[in-house]
Amino acid sequence: GDAAAGKARSAVCVACHTESGISVVPIYPNLAGQKEAYLVSSMKAYKSQERKGGNAAIMWAIAGALSDEDINNLAAYYASLPAGGN
Amino acid sequence: GDAAAGKARSAVCVACHTESGISVVPIYPNLAGQKEAYLVSSMKAYKSQERKGGNAAIMWAIAGALSDEDINNLAAYYASLPAGGN
Repeated sequence: GDAAAGKARSAVCVACHTESGISVVPIYPNLAGQKEAYLVSSMKAYKSQERKGGNAAIMWAIAGALSDEDINNLAAYYASLPAGGN
Repeated sequence: GDAAAGKARSAVCVACHTESGISVVPIYPNLAGQKEAYLVSSMKAYKSQERKGGNAAIMWAIAGALSDEDINNLAAYYASLPAGGN
């Protein structure tokens, strides 16, 4: 995916995952430096609502509004951020 | 959880998530430095098989064999590893 396009699309993610991709809420995952293909797989699993459990339902709504292109770009963006946010 | 006990229990995880908690397979997530509470939530969602999609089925079997105490300890262990594996 295109990390720059992902950054442009990331406003909807920042509230929980923050600018650095390190979330401030213990139950929300850090995304920075995560595997790009895993991020794509996760977002698609939320979009299809196959992924349930925990706070999955929050992500159903958010991922539901993302196109596959958005998903690929957001995955590239978060994978490109330094793991641990430093 | 108890990170040391988690490390002792992590043999079953290393094959995919490696010693550093940074996976070598693009579709398997990095776990190092992830949020402890998120790791607990994820493992429980795999254990209950609520989490489907992607390679979830692999984790059903693995998480299915973990006690809640194992889950808490493994979460503490991987959360304690340096994000990005450095």
